[in-house]
Amino acid sequence: MKALQYRTIGAAPEVVTVPDPEPGPGQVLLKVTAAGVCHSDVAVMSRPTDDLPYPLPLTLGHEGVGTVAALGAGVTGLSEGDAVAVYGPWGCGTCAKCAEGKENYCLRATDLGIMPPGLGSPGSMAEYMIVDDPRHLVPLDGLDPVAAVPLTDAGLTPYHAIKRSLPKLAAGSTAVVIGAGGLGHVAVQLLRAMTPARVIALDVAEDKLELARAVGAHEAVLSDAAAAGTVRQLTGGNGAQAVFDFVGAEPTVRTAAAVAGVEADIAIVGIGGAALPVGFGLLPFEVSVTAPYWGTRAELIEVLALARSGAVSVHTETFSLDDAPVAYERLHAGTVNGRAVILPNG
Amino acid sequence: MKALQYRTIGAAPEVVTVPDPEPGPGQVLLKVTAAGVCHSDVAVMSRPTDDLPYPLPLTLGHEGVGTVAALGAGVTGLSEGDAVAVYGPWGCGTCAKCAEGKENYCLRATDLGIMPPGLGSPGSMAEYMIVDDPRHLVPLDGLDPVAAVPLTDAGLTPYHAIKRSLPKLAAGSTAVVIGAGGLGHVAVQLLRAMTPARVIALDVAEDKLELARAVGAHEAVLSDAAAAGTVRQLTGGNGAQAVFDFVGAEPTVRTAAAVAGVEADIAIVGIGGAALPVGFGLLPFEVSVTAPYWGTRAELIEVLALARSGAVSVHTETFSLDDAPVAYERLHAGTVNGRAVILPNG
Amino acid sequence: MKALQYRTIGAAPEVVTVPDPEPGPGQVLLKVTAAGVCHSDVAVMSRPTDDLPYPLPLTLGHEGVGTVAALGAGVTGLSEGDAVAVYGPWGCGTCAKCAEGKENYCLRATDLGIMPPGLGSPGSMAEYMIVDDPRHLVPLDGLDPVAAVPLTDAGLTPYHAIKRSLPKLAAGSTAVVIGAGGLGHVAVQLLRAMTPARVIALDVAEDKLELARAVGAHEAVLSDAAAAGTVRQLTGGNGAQAVFDFVGAEPTVRTAAAVAGVEADIAIVGIGGAALPVGFGLLPFEVSVTAPYWGTRAELIEVLALARSGAVSVHTETFSLDDAPVAYERLHAGTVNGRAVILPNG
Amino acid sequence: MKALQYRTIGAAPEVVTVPDPEPGPGQVLLKVTAAGVCHSDVAVMSRPTDDLPYPLPLTLGHEGVGTVAALGAGVTGLSEGDAVAVYGPWGCGTCAKCAEGKENYCLRATDLGIMPPGLGSPGSMAEYMIVDDPRHLVPLDGLDPVAAVPLTDAGLTPYHAIKRSLPKLAAGSTAVVIGAGGLGHVAVQLLRAMTPARVIALDVAEDKLELARAVGAHEAVLSDAAAAGTVRQLTGGNGAQAVFDFVGAEPTVRTAAAVAGVEADIAIVGIGGAALPVGFGLLPFEVSVTAPYWGTRAELIEVLALARSGAVSVHTETFSLDDAPVAYERLHAGTVNGRAVILPNG
Repeated sequence: MKALQYRTIGAAPEVVTVPDPEPGPGQVLLKVTAAGVCHSDVAVMSRPTDDLPYPLPLTLGHEGVGTVAALGAGVTGLSEGDAVAVYGPWGCGTCAKCAEGKENYCLRATDLGIMPPGLGSPGSMAEYMIVDDPRHLVPLDGLDPVAAVPLTDAGLTPYHAIKRSLPKLAAGSTAVVIGAGGLGHVAVQLLRAMTPARVIALDVAEDKLELARAVGAHEAVLSDAAAAGTVRQLTGGNGAQAVFDFVGAEPTVRTAAAVAGVEADIAIVGIGGAALPVGFGLLPFEVSVTAPYWGTRAELIEVLALARSGAVSVHTETFSLDDAPVAYERLHAGTVNGRAVILPNG
Repeated sequence: MKALQYRTIGAAPEVVTVPDPEPGPGQVLLKVTAAGVCHSDVAVMSRPTDDLPYPLPLTLGHEGVGTVAALGAGVTGLSEGDAVAVYGPWGCGTCAKCAEGKENYCLRATDLGIMPPGLGSPGSMAEYMIVDDPRHLVPLDGLDPVAAVPLTDAGLTPYHAIKRSLPKLAAGSTAVVIGAGGLGHVAVQLLRAMTPARVIALDVAEDKLELARAVGAHEAVLSDAAAAGTVRQLTGGNGAQAVFDFVGAEPTVRTAAAVAGVEADIAIVGIGGAALPVGFGLLPFEVSVTAPYWGTRAELIEVLALARSGAVSVHTETFSLDDAPVAYERLHAGTVNGRAVILPNG
Repeated sequence: MKALQYRTIGAAPEVVTVPDPEPGPGQVLLKVTAAGVCHSDVAVMSRPTDDLPYPLPLTLGHEGVGTVAALGAGVTGLSEGDAVAVYGPWGCGTCAKCAEGKENYCLRATDLGIMPPGLGSPGSMAEYMIVDDPRHLVPLDGLDPVAAVPLTDAGLTPYHAIKRSLPKLAAGSTAVVIGAGGLGHVAVQLLRAMTPARVIALDVAEDKLELARAVGAHEAVLSDAAAAGTVRQLTGGNGAQAVFDFVGAEPTVRTAAAVAGVEADIAIVGIGGAALPVGFGLLPFEVSVTAPYWGTRAELIEVLALARSGAVSVHTETFSLDDAPVAYERLHAGTVNGRAVILPNG
Repeated sequence: MKALQYRTIGAAPEVVTVPDPEPGPGQVLLKVTAAGVCHSDVAVMSRPTDDLPYPLPLTLGHEGVGTVAALGAGVTGLSEGDAVAVYGPWGCGTCAKCAEGKENYCLRATDLGIMPPGLGSPGSMAEYMIVDDPRHLVPLDGLDPVAAVPLTDAGLTPYHAIKRSLPKLAAGSTAVVIGAGGLGHVAVQLLRAMTPARVIALDVAEDKLELARAVGAHEAVLSDAAAAGTVRQLTGGNGAQAVFDFVGAEPTVRTAAAVAGVEADIAIVGIGGAALPVGFGLLPFEVSVTAPYWGTRAELIEVLALARSGAVSVHTETFSLDDAPVAYERLHAGTVNGRAVILPNG
């Protein structure tokens, strides 16, 4: 079959032919209908040799949707032809975190050499992919594959970050979204659907602010030196109760700190590499700062249900598998319109 | 000043002249701009002599909004002319419940003889009223008095019931509202604004179902013998995650039980007098049943903030203080269009 | 191999020889070291033919501990010889409840015909047993098999009930345990280890009250007509914040209602068949009543960790597999001293 | 009356005679029985002129216990002679935070010029003190004044920090306490009473480690370069689920980061001035870092209840009011044995 592989450090990914995979006992073979292209793939392919935690060649794609093509021995509860989304952050399934479905925080994955598809294991940018266990599949139940596939990461990651802060986002509260791009514009929709909070989006690009308004932000503010003051003013001086930074760079974490109110949550989701110092007197009382990662199994079920209700949608642009390298080039160049989705069998 | 008083067991309330009240130390005098008429007043006036816990004559009105007319000695943080809403379920202010602002569940109110305005203390259906402590006032901050006054009970009560169940109402969940009248049609709006849940309203009257749809219910189902089956079907067989019964009569609590899913919350808010039996095997696993009452101080602040955002509104019909007895007659007859509001100084 | 089976409606269970089981793909074969005898087995064997949801013959035992004897194809993360406890309430592993490890509340188990070991599937009262998936095993990590095995149900069930109420059991609170037998005397220990609450145990038998005191109850009160008054007095009139009824009979649910304070949780755990009516004015404000069942995967990990710390222990009496029918006779007669444990390979 | 005042920047506090205070409307006059000496007073007295937020002279003492000597006009629910503890972090009583009893996080205190006793308002180190509102008093209900007074800050502050992390501290978890001094040795006791967690105390002084063991720490580890490795080893490599740093200096916040496990809470309580940088990849997944401050009204009620049960006690050394300057000298010199308590009327 054909697959998009990252084969040489620093080189572009290539479409190659690899052996057709077969599902072992307990595994599921998917015919991939859609695979999402993600900025973090670009980050992976920018790492030097001694900092790459995955063996090469690596079939890319950690967002995947497909139909069940074959069941390994002993698999029950699924049928061939079932349309499913792949839960990506695979864990051991049995540790204290996995027992709650928090496989994104598995305590044993590193020790056992368990890696997510596209991030160590063969990913979704291929005609077929192996899923290690049926528990990592969620029924699409009528969702369009192209619309659904970005939700497995670009939807699940902000969903998880927001869910943690729901108790802070009562009526009368304010949520600030920094960075209204791929994850941020989904976060705006999720916040509107899940909370009564006023949603303020910040971005440095006017078109992203326009997008934020279009998907429901109550306010969209240019992210410059005056932004924090504007947010303070919009909140009657009290600041926001939750801040989601989807950039994670020096200026944005400083802004996050400056707009947070007493007892606020700050989630640094973006992998921009910056850090926010926390200590007594540095932030308003009891502001809590964390850097969450991806989401849980139950949360993927929930975010797909939300999409089914029409409350969240991601703008997508599709590419054939042969054109997948082009998609990555355009992503790198910043000219993808929304989220790029590969159709490996399209 | 003029006041509407319940003076004789079983008789209609009367407009009478009473001495102008003066605020003692720590108290606040309000000039009342709006006072809400509530079904529970009718219930109070239906009680026989030996079952009435309040001394007569009783100035009615446990929903009140006004402007600060005078401050008792020692009161700070308020100014004359401030427009405020009254938090009704007064407590001692110092017990373990009151220390969290749950004055509706004060542990010492009965022992200390503390009673809410209109339910023991002189209420809001008068030109002026005394509020015992400034902590029982919330700034209107621009809200219209007539629109705001029903929120202090008909808004706060469903808000409190819903807030308790927010962790159950994740994406993909279903909330059922039984009874789409005064409190129920507010509950539908609150659920839409605060949660991603699908909202199903049940009522025996077609016009109430129409109202439920108009204020945002995803589904409005006639509350008959088939209703529970319809809800099961709409939820893929799983039932609802939260059920709010604003009627509390035998048929509705049975329906509540029949539509609840595993781990659901059932809140019996209506004072229809019925009881739902809970025991092993009688309901789906770990369904939790409770009867909440009114709400907390922080919740009143929140529900008013929600109204300020435009997310919740109550249809109202206004009456002068002289016509207040007519409002109660029409409420009793079921011909009030929305919530009746008295304008004591209108 | 030898197994204890319930073969004929109404008859005593018998030790019989059955074929040695072999693990299919994804399954695990355990050599059983200890199997717990539970009252609910007696309840199962008291059901008439048309009310028994399981096919006969049924190998009993829903509490099990063993060592891994063989791994089915595709099973990873376990090795032969590993000492493990069995998580009993098997679910589908993929529905919204199972995705959070709440397999006790699986939404699809009934539809898919999934049944716990000893309660439909072949149980632990045999030399060997099949576990359907490695996720249903928790490492003993040094725990004694006989001491550990009752924790999988008699420990997990009260642990789950208590964990739900932890937010109510702050410093200064009171927890009431009704029934200080098998589950109740574990509940007392769990409450002491997990909360700062004062623990009051109620029972009709003086020796059970003695046991409750010995394992840490602050107070042990004879469960008669005066008991509720005593509890009220011990709590300064406020009642308890959580009540755990391990009997579930008419008198005990009435007592539960009578000792509950404002906003208390009542958990009816016992299968005594009684129901507690919930409605406005019937209980103190916002008392929440529920009937929980068994526990989650993460909770079994936690309760075993607690046992490892020495904080909880169950008195046990051991029997060979050949004597298992005697254990059931004695359980039925009420003459088992603590929890009866079968040693199928002992 | 006599009072201990800080009168001149940089000078030692002095015992002076000031006019007897009289309670205004809504206020309460206390005859002070015990006043706690706190390190933060020393920090206040070390501040330069332009950095001191309080007017001088300042009567010290933000921990106070006394008996009601007189009630201002309009005060109800208290009687002369009542023994009470003072809740110190006074707020406005009406904002969204105060409405939940979180007066430590009052949104309006700064604007309204509200300051805690001893930290702006006249404090407890005087024969009498004014409490601005009865809601700031909690009955001692039999607690010894000297034993109780440190609980109002040195007890309440760790209690608040711990309470926030209770959901993380399930059975099988580990809590690390850094700094086993005044607050830290109380934290060890609170953790033992309130949670099933294993408690590991770290300190640089062997006598503090001895104290930590004596009050219940499961492990006490010298806080050096090897400490983090020891904690990792004691936790099977997983690290702790909650870390409480009562020092807040560079080495301790680094240790806090090094011992935290996935999803852990880190609370920086100590005012040592250091900061912990939070960003993607810097800490285990979703570690949450915050700097809490003091506690809520309900939490003071709870911590006093815990003391009443015998679960927490503070070693104290008493001084007369005339010797209060000596107590501060000895605190500064590090030679106070436990917590210094002044007896202004002793």
